[in-house]
Amino acid sequence: MSSGISILVIDDNKIRASIIEEGLRDAGHDEVILVHQMDGLVRQIADINPDVIVIDLENPNRDQLEHMFQVSRTVHRPIAMFVDKADSLSIEAAVDAGVSAYVVDGLKRERVKPILDMAVSRFRAFSKLAQELEDARTELADRKSIDRAKGILMKSKGLSEQEAYELLRRTAMNQSRKIIDVAQSLIIASGLLAD
Amino acid sequence: MSSGISILVIDDNKIRASIIEEGLRDAGHDEVILVHQMDGLVRQIADINPDVIVIDLENPNRDQLEHMFQVSRTVHRPIAMFVDKADSLSIEAAVDAGVSAYVVDGLKRERVKPILDMAVSRFRAFSKLAQELEDARTELADRKSIDRAKGILMKSKGLSEQEAYELLRRTAMNQSRKIIDVAQSLIIASGLLAD
Repeated sequence: MSSGISILVIDDNKIRASIIEEGLRDAGHDEVILVHQMDGLVRQIADINPDVIVIDLENPNRDQLEHMFQVSRTVHRPIAMFVDKADSLSIEAAVDAGVSAYVVDGLKRERVKPILDMAVSRFRAFSKLAQELEDARTELADRKSIDRAKGILMKSKGLSEQEAYELLRRTAMNQSRKIIDVAQSLIIASGLLAD
Repeated sequence: MSSGISILVIDDNKIRASIIEEGLRDAGHDEVILVHQMDGLVRQIADINPDVIVIDLENPNRDQLEHMFQVSRTVHRPIAMFVDKADSLSIEAAVDAGVSAYVVDGLKRERVKPILDMAVSRFRAFSKLAQELEDARTELADRKSIDRAKGILMKSKGLSEQEAYELLRRTAMNQSRKIIDVAQSLIIASGLLAD
């Protein structure tokens, strides 16, 4: 990972925070912001807008963990999290919440850089897959909507499939809109106008 | 992670292998198989058929790493890998190869269990997403094929869309096949028969 990225470190233990900070500086990261205040974290993260987030929790209770997992689900950024102890359930919960690196009992100055690299790589790989899934599902949903709109036109105006598609396409062109938008409008309108 | 899962440990360093083995036994895992022989690894893994794989490489050269990444891409199982050093590129390569936990400079008896749990959780989360993507893409491709087959029937037999779909559906039912199979046969045949 090249430097020039900004890293937010969230830690209420100053000694552990300095281990992380030193590990980051060793690796050439100088844009490091420390946050010790856990209230309003999502808002703070939005304001600071970091590229990567490191959270150190030492020995978190269940509420603290759940709070951080909620943050993870919200912020859509690579997150590396250090805890000193963890059971199988909390590990699974961390993965589910999108924590990119969840390090149990492994805080060490020399390990901060590889763990950060790992978090960034994993975040990218997972985001890429999630984006591909979203694209495929959108394409499928669009195709279904367009088919439904064609069906509505074929039935109500006695058109062939080809003619129905042409009408959708022409309407979209004339209105400078996408075919899928015209199709969705037609489906909505057809629901409104049905008796 | 409940025990009862079988774990294959691949390590040519006996001291490090025993650290891993002890960490696994501490965690109640008794189905542990050790492999020290790196040749024919994919074949060995297929024979042993473990639930999880732990690979320890200590200080691998580039070829050894690439070999293990190739194994990872092939075997479709949770893999935790320990190395003592790594640069950003090899970390990215590990993630790309589907290594579920890639631990740099972090081999310690107490950490073996949480790392294994993490590998299993991450493998599941990633596999689930990958499966969903495959399903969505298959559904989309099937829909496209069925549309194409309908188009062929509409043109060659002068049918409406509805009639074309009905013909596909009836043919599938009569032959105890899926509509998508009939559609694909029709597309292939239509390519063969076209002049």
